[in-house]
Amino acid sequence: MMEGGIKFGYNEKGCQDFIRRIEGSRPIFVCVIATTETARIPGLSAAGAMPELTDYTPAADVELLFYGRCRCIEGVPVTPDGIPTPALITMSALRLSNIPYFVLNGGAKVLPKVPFFEVGGSPGKDIRSGCAVENSEEVYERSSIIGRQLSRAADYLVVGESIPGGTTTALAVLLAMGVDAKLKVSSSMPNNPHDLKLRVVEAAFESAGISYGSLERAPFKAISLVGDPMMPAAAGLIAGAAEEVPVIMAGGTQMCAVLKLLQSISPEVLGNLAIGTTRWILEDKTSDIRELVSKVAPVPLLAADLDFSASKYRGLRAYELGVAKEGVGAGGASIAAMLSSRGTITRASLLKDIEDSYSMLTDSASH
Amino acid sequence: MMEGGIKFGYNEKGCQDFIRRIEGSRPIFVCVIATTETARIPGLSAAGAMPELTDYTPAADVELLFYGRCRCIEGVPVTPDGIPTPALITMSALRLSNIPYFVLNGGAKVLPKVPFFEVGGSPGKDIRSGCAVENSEEVYERSSIIGRQLSRAADYLVVGESIPGGTTTALAVLLAMGVDAKLKVSSSMPNNPHDLKLRVVEAAFESAGISYGSLERAPFKAISLVGDPMMPAAAGLIAGAAEEVPVIMAGGTQMCAVLKLLQSISPEVLGNLAIGTTRWILEDKTSDIRELVSKVAPVPLLAADLDFSASKYRGLRAYELGVAKEGVGAGGASIAAMLSSRGTITRASLLKDIEDSYSMLTDSASH
Repeated sequence: MMEGGIKFGYNEKGCQDFIRRIEGSRPIFVCVIATTETARIPGLSAAGAMPELTDYTPAADVELLFYGRCRCIEGVPVTPDGIPTPALITMSALRLSNIPYFVLNGGAKVLPKVPFFEVGGSPGKDIRSGCAVENSEEVYERSSIIGRQLSRAADYLVVGESIPGGTTTALAVLLAMGVDAKLKVSSSMPNNPHDLKLRVVEAAFESAGISYGSLERAPFKAISLVGDPMMPAAAGLIAGAAEEVPVIMAGGTQMCAVLKLLQSISPEVLGNLAIGTTRWILEDKTSDIRELVSKVAPVPLLAADLDFSASKYRGLRAYELGVAKEGVGAGGASIAAMLSSRGTITRASLLKDIEDSYSMLTDSASH
Repeated sequence: MMEGGIKFGYNEKGCQDFIRRIEGSRPIFVCVIATTETARIPGLSAAGAMPELTDYTPAADVELLFYGRCRCIEGVPVTPDGIPTPALITMSALRLSNIPYFVLNGGAKVLPKVPFFEVGGSPGKDIRSGCAVENSEEVYERSSIIGRQLSRAADYLVVGESIPGGTTTALAVLLAMGVDAKLKVSSSMPNNPHDLKLRVVEAAFESAGISYGSLERAPFKAISLVGDPMMPAAAGLIAGAAEEVPVIMAGGTQMCAVLKLLQSISPEVLGNLAIGTTRWILEDKTSDIRELVSKVAPVPLLAADLDFSASKYRGLRAYELGVAKEGVGAGGASIAAMLSSRGTITRASLLKDIEDSYSMLTDSASH
């Protein structure tokens, strides 16, 4: 099932209802940025040309949104193969739709040269330490205040994330809370390194002294021991806003971990939530977001039906091969852009704008 | 002239027009916080029981807004005589009107335990060093991004400030830019220490190697040499928003310095600006905001016609004797609350709510 550029991934009736509620109304977009040293484990994340560069990716992503170029790095964040960040998609979606947007720093090692909300978070440690995130309850509380304030100024919120290594921490939190997410989290690489992720999670569980499901009722402990700093910030922001308005959780399988946290911390807001992602995540053979959502909570699962197969640029066509796929709220921002425009923003106009940015940015990078 | 709880201080026609534009529409309130070591000069500021405590005042003020109590200090910020912060007024105005609000950190030594926008500012130095504020252009630019984004989510903005010592730095910037502000800036004390302020400014000018009017066309240099970190943040925020929507500059004579900066940096936005303050500032015999506004730019000058003379509490009646008077956007927030409610929030209902908070907070402080 689909509707004007948006595919329904799970809970079709819920998807239709959710779209009816937000169509034509005015959202605010927030990107939560953070880093975790987990991303430096070789082979784990492609969100950066080299593991050491993943510290710069979240900052560079949001600089791109505000300035149309990055300031903390040359060019734009790319995978080891040179495939550009999905922030390009988000940038086009926000620009075309004129949706207001903000950044929330959950705990990023490299701070972006843009304004951002500060909530007292710190960069995350390698989860193999068994001691990954500081201060998660306070970060959740402060972020929920932002969500509450923004909900008074917007009809709905779209919450994205940028944190390299985030699917591994998502896997850890889901397993710790009793959701069988093995082989189901996605990856920014076509060859999803499931074995490596599981080995990292096993090492984390051993250090933390936990096991599958042992933290089912301890969401903040799950974050603190084996999660990442995006999680309490995004969960708080979403919970605070969803007390009053709908929220699109804009991301792939990482947002399933945030959904699980919310189901535990703030179940009364679940009726206001949907996950909004990309077709590349929905159709990914190496992961299973439908299964994850169905296991966690039956919220609507929407996917922007983006198609780069006919793009002039190899770097964009690569998305059809399973590179990058999602991030920086690309899918949710595209959905919001299409819905807010009542049809004037389409898959085609989005692709055109993304190609223009891509061309401009890769030109300027090669000079 | 006045209208439903709002006095017109200057440019009556402009005041009426401005009110017509914003009446019944939806604002967002932002409080810009910062500190300057200038506030530690004994006798200069009453925004803190002792000079050393002024570092805590901005943080405590905004904690009060979000939590209804302070977290970084016991009780609430008070003057040396125990008179409470005008944040009490702002808190009631925002609460009664349900206006969304945010904090922007221009550069505060003590960070509040609330979420806030970060723009890369640092705490200000004593202006007698002749080298008061770092990074003012970057802070202005990043703050203007926030203003631009917020202007897409609100019908208008209300921008307040909390920075002890701010009238002295305002005096310095106004004089450096050629506005004869001598004896015209206000004070949180009934006995405005004009002589002391002038001596401080003279020392600052000597260190900075500047003189009256010598920085008329160098607004960022005026901030950097003898200003404070609230200024570039508030000016940027206001300029960014006022490209699209009206902005109430919520403050007393400090906002005249910000207005002067904007007149120099971004004169095209002046038509979207008004100053919104309290009756206590408008009627203050020891300062002259009307004269300052008329010298700088003929923007509308509005004042919330608050009257605490019949209050049950000595701490509030003291406002009628010229203590505190304004701060944390108290006047502008009150104006916005009254206008947004189309008359259901009145001077009387505000005073009632302020008295309730005052009673609760002073009770809990004495336990």
